[in-house]
Amino acid sequence: MSGTLYGVGVGPGDPELLTLKAVRILQQTPVLAYPAPLAGDSLARSIASPHIQAGKTEIAIRLPFSPDRGDSESRYDIASENLSAHLEAGRDVALLCLGDPLFYGTFAHVLARVAGRFPVAVVPGVTSLAAASAAVAMPVAMGDESLAVIPATLDEDTIAARIDAADCAAIVKIGRNLGKVRGILTRLGLAGEARYIEFASAETQRVRKLAEVAEDEAAYFAIVLAPKRTNP
Amino acid sequence: MSGTLYGVGVGPGDPELLTLKAVRILQQTPVLAYPAPLAGDSLARSIASPHIQAGKTEIAIRLPFSPDRGDSESRYDIASENLSAHLEAGRDVALLCLGDPLFYGTFAHVLARVAGRFPVAVVPGVTSLAAASAAVAMPVAMGDESLAVIPATLDEDTIAARIDAADCAAIVKIGRNLGKVRGILTRLGLAGEARYIEFASAETQRVRKLAEVAEDEAAYFAIVLAPKRTNP
Repeated sequence: MSGTLYGVGVGPGDPELLTLKAVRILQQTPVLAYPAPLAGDSLARSIASPHIQAGKTEIAIRLPFSPDRGDSESRYDIASENLSAHLEAGRDVALLCLGDPLFYGTFAHVLARVAGRFPVAVVPGVTSLAAASAAVAMPVAMGDESLAVIPATLDEDTIAARIDAADCAAIVKIGRNLGKVRGILTRLGLAGEARYIEFASAETQRVRKLAEVAEDEAAYFAIVLAPKRTNP
Repeated sequence: MSGTLYGVGVGPGDPELLTLKAVRILQQTPVLAYPAPLAGDSLARSIASPHIQAGKTEIAIRLPFSPDRGDSESRYDIASENLSAHLEAGRDVALLCLGDPLFYGTFAHVLARVAGRFPVAVVPGVTSLAAASAAVAMPVAMGDESLAVIPATLDEDTIAARIDAADCAAIVKIGRNLGKVRGILTRLGLAGEARYIEFASAETQRVRKLAEVAEDEAAYFAIVLAPKRTNP
């Protein structure tokens, strides 16, 4: 009688953007896990914190949030074994994930390590992409438009080709790649309509026209929306 | 003192996938609007119905859900004027939207007509894409993968080119386009890993391997997930 591994999306930052289901699952689950930096607080946990009762077993999965990802793979190995011990003992585990668990999240890495060994259930969440578009009231995609979601960490030619092959682009994981992304969008004639949104829906949310963001102040948790349509 | 127009995402189908914020906004707003077919019930309203108290003014925006969209544009004109009358009179209006308001939704069409005239606020929601990936526990995108979201209503060459220019594809609005989509994915060698999910998270949810779906039974509210990675 093993436990169930829940991937629980806690949404993009505003604690009110948890779903009713996320709140219920995290409240009825005895073991909570979440990604966290090597030192300091977990953003996923802080978003969910208004809904977390005392007495939970909590497991911080500490990861180097650096561009080369450092020793993340072995850290996922260790975390997955740690969670597996609880699941084998019959305890349900909820892995809290920023945004949606299966959209550029930590959960996929743990899932790949435990798939087939335990029951798994995913509670989808509001993505930072949805929150970014809400912050600027600009459609991510509408009608028959196609959308490309592109990590800013990819090389310049790849990013440009992916933007070219879509009607709208959402570029994620901006951080130190802002200059590169802005250069590409400027060459493609898309910089004027593009919007920069960081920490969408959180208290620290900032919204700018792309042209107005200083290169050294872009956040990793920032998104650039670049539609080819002209918005009202 | 005009009212505020709220675009409220009610999520993909499970009433428990509304956010806490969506529930609060729709409960404190006197006028609720929602898209609906020409005859019959609104799916967005039915998802939100456990949270709707008696005494609301309700406005069904009736639209022909046909491939050519019929007289949708004039119906949006009329609906927007109807909502504007409430907003001008100082009443807040919540437009309930399936999934997320700015991801292939009705809201963008109303927004384009009222932008600049009234305060607008968007409550992002869980998309059917997130719910579809949750239903099959398959990442939509992970790590440095790029994602293409592609309406199945586009022509064959366009769909193939957009799939080619991405690491993962999510093809939306399947319906009568299933045969076309399956043909493209088969030629690209991606049909084996592809999954078909309809009415994700709703009681009527169905999940199939793409090869196993009968061509005449595909739903419009269905998504095909086709990653280029091999999943565990």
